[in-house]
Amino acid sequence: MSPICYLSRVAHFSAAHRLHNPSLSAETNRQVFGKCNHPGGHGHNYIIEVVVRGPVNSETGMLISIDDLKQWIKSAVLDIMDHRNIDQDIAYFKARPSTAENIAVFSWIRLSQVMPPGLLHQVIVSETIKNKASFSGEGLTDKDIEACIV
Amino acid sequence: MSPICYLSRVAHFSAAHRLHNPSLSAETNRQVFGKCNHPGGHGHNYIIEVVVRGPVNSETGMLISIDDLKQWIKSAVLDIMDHRNIDQDIAYFKARPSTAENIAVFSWIRLSQVMPPGLLHQVIVSETIKNKASFSGEGLTDKDIEACIV
Amino acid sequence: MSPICYLSRVAHFSAAHRLHNPSLSAETNRQVFGKCNHPGGHGHNYIIEVVVRGPVNSETGMLISIDDLKQWIKSAVLDIMDHRNIDQDIAYFKARPSTAENIAVFSWIRLSQVMPPGLLHQVIVSETIKNKASFSGEGLTDKDIEACIV
Amino acid sequence: MSPICYLSRVAHFSAAHRLHNPSLSAETNRQVFGKCNHPGGHGHNYIIEVVVRGPVNSETGMLISIDDLKQWIKSAVLDIMDHRNIDQDIAYFKARPSTAENIAVFSWIRLSQVMPPGLLHQVIVSETIKNKASFSGEGLTDKDIEACIV
Amino acid sequence: MSPICYLSRVAHFSAAHRLHNPSLSAETNRQVFGKCNHPGGHGHNYIIEVVVRGPVNSETGMLISIDDLKQWIKSAVLDIMDHRNIDQDIAYFKARPSTAENIAVFSWIRLSQVMPPGLLHQVIVSETIKNKASFSGEGLTDKDIEACIV
Amino acid sequence: MSPICYLSRVAHFSAAHRLHNPSLSAETNRQVFGKCNHPGGHGHNYIIEVVVRGPVNSETGMLISIDDLKQWIKSAVLDIMDHRNIDQDIAYFKARPSTAENIAVFSWIRLSQVMPPGLLHQVIVSETIKNKASFSGEGLTDKDIEACIV
Repeated sequence: MSPICYLSRVAHFSAAHRLHNPSLSAETNRQVFGKCNHPGGHGHNYIIEVVVRGPVNSETGMLISIDDLKQWIKSAVLDIMDHRNIDQDIAYFKARPSTAENIAVFSWIRLSQVMPPGLLHQVIVSETIKNKASFSGEGLTDKDIEACIV
Repeated sequence: MSPICYLSRVAHFSAAHRLHNPSLSAETNRQVFGKCNHPGGHGHNYIIEVVVRGPVNSETGMLISIDDLKQWIKSAVLDIMDHRNIDQDIAYFKARPSTAENIAVFSWIRLSQVMPPGLLHQVIVSETIKNKASFSGEGLTDKDIEACIV
Repeated sequence: MSPICYLSRVAHFSAAHRLHNPSLSAETNRQVFGKCNHPGGHGHNYIIEVVVRGPVNSETGMLISIDDLKQWIKSAVLDIMDHRNIDQDIAYFKARPSTAENIAVFSWIRLSQVMPPGLLHQVIVSETIKNKASFSGEGLTDKDIEACIV
Repeated sequence: MSPICYLSRVAHFSAAHRLHNPSLSAETNRQVFGKCNHPGGHGHNYIIEVVVRGPVNSETGMLISIDDLKQWIKSAVLDIMDHRNIDQDIAYFKARPSTAENIAVFSWIRLSQVMPPGLLHQVIVSETIKNKASFSGEGLTDKDIEACIV
Repeated sequence: MSPICYLSRVAHFSAAHRLHNPSLSAETNRQVFGKCNHPGGHGHNYIIEVVVRGPVNSETGMLISIDDLKQWIKSAVLDIMDHRNIDQDIAYFKARPSTAENIAVFSWIRLSQVMPPGLLHQVIVSETIKNKASFSGEGLTDKDIEACIV
Repeated sequence: MSPICYLSRVAHFSAAHRLHNPSLSAETNRQVFGKCNHPGGHGHNYIIEVVVRGPVNSETGMLISIDDLKQWIKSAVLDIMDHRNIDQDIAYFKARPSTAENIAVFSWIRLSQVMPPGLLHQVIVSETIKNKASFSGEGLTDKDIEACIV
């Protein structure tokens, strides 16, 4: 038996986005999304915190190598989000508004595809210093997972 | 079924307060509350983080509108706390010391009165960058709720 | 005589942009601006700090009213930058790359047009927590000023 | 000859205050100071940054001992401001509104009285994360200095 | 019955350390720990957040006295970690790599030895602004506890 | 003529150090440096901010390429400081205490050797969130410059 710890790693990415659902009318989009529906889009310095959970390895004193965690975040999230336009560049967000909630769910699915099973605990996405969304895998459907192919 | 997310919003308010229980002696108040019992009071830039939990709406990609959440925090907390003297201006704190714990409980009750049932998950109140208290509704009594009328 | 102070106010805006100079070739744009030249653009949570300098009014104890300063920043900068696409929505940036340097110069010109003469001291623009540019009016030309009409 | 450096030290204090000038009418006070004139007062977690300037001692590698600087800030500022009501507890602020500008000037005078001559360079006082005032000794009068006796 | 709150207190300590397991070869140490295995060591400004959980005392409005919590953190953690070399100065880390995970477990054990039973909820240790580990007592063995004698 | 701007870039490095002057007695070292003289050393997450000053290029809108600035900071400072023991690994600090002041002077010299002349404006080194030192080249001697060979 080993102590069970949580380990978290923070990364940043800067991206453009616009909240817009093409299946709704222009008027409804303006009402639902307000200033975030501005046609030219806007952008954020997103902060993503990825939390993993598991036993501490008695030889290394580490839950996992922080270098592995950095690499997973880079390949699963940063490489397709950083310095990009989320809505235009990622198929998943063509049909779904790129809210912080949906970015957290998307990042969870992407990360769980590259990490050892059972390791990922929580994904927290901050849009600004005042707003953040987090997701821990609850209520995920096959439809969400299937849509998540870059 | 939809992914279940947590969404949090941060707000600030600046207020004066003094830790003091009028039913205790002056000497006991000094012993229990130390420098926080100084007669003229002191003050803080409080930070409140309100966390809600629920399914993501598939059409909007949002758990709730962040504008609604901002408005609830404004009407339930900021409008009666910001640029005020907590002890003198709010009846609830005439009989209870205005500790971070009690401010978190008070804010929880006030917020749950204006928000849809089941949405509120956690209220976190920071007094300084080193101290914070959080409350998630556990152990709340009718007496606390009844006292919370502004 | 009165003490001379500096007063500064911080504001935030979220915007999309792309570093691109239409008078240069696509290849040169990629070489000069790297990932910031990505066609769909990206975005930031910009932080602007506006510093004013002057004597403290002996009656009010204030250099100027902070509410006036907030209003000037709102009308001169936030109203045309926040939740916008800087390059597409502001004429000044159609002919100039929207670097932090140029945004600082632009904000300086706009602010100096609405503020009492001699008050504005410095404009600091942060693109990320690691990069910022500041401008204090040095070397400004009539051409820059004339171009700054929204 | 030695390299000339700047060294700065940050400290925090929590205090109550109210912006109010007793020589003005109640109505004028409300107009000038707005919500900051609320009768019961409000409060802040103030941050003070004290900057000193001078040659680096070649034996110690230090401009001055940081412990001395901490002690000067404690005795000149924190001991009379922290967990206090600035207006009620400090004579200097009975006749002057306790704005960030005036607190910076007051702290400058107090610090210069306990520090070696020529060392103090700048005092920066933040009221909130968005507002700060700084003072470097310019325009100081004997009247200000004489008023600054605790 | 009383509301159940969480209260947390943050403290800082600056320490040197080196990730190294003497029972592994030099080559394996370099592979496992990378730049953190540099012979002369390196160091961090560690941030420790200690979270306690319990009912709010109706008389004081406090879960516990924040002064007691500060004192426990000082005696159990800061007094043996701050401005020290973790590996050389603390016996527990002679046989275990001083990872953030192990520092969190060590701090949990030390704190639980000086605090009233059932109060300690979580220990969070940040090595940098990007990496943190947390521990809540899960999976703790007698062997870990016995090793934790300073 | 072009607008003259300041551009700054922030970088982090984690290092071990000990304040100690071998030409002074053990007793004097303890008196001068206090807890920072602990034999096993301690460490910090240092933050370095490098400020450059110059005209904005009208074609690129940039003072200089931020990628160049990042590269200069990496080669001149991070590559020899990050995850190192400052005193043991850098000859310059064998004869000088590794104070924030001396690290700022050292970084200034190193940076000015790799950057175009006249560009470097200021180097700011933070040891903790409360202490920082800055240097702008004033009072620099040939002896300091000659000692700065890695």
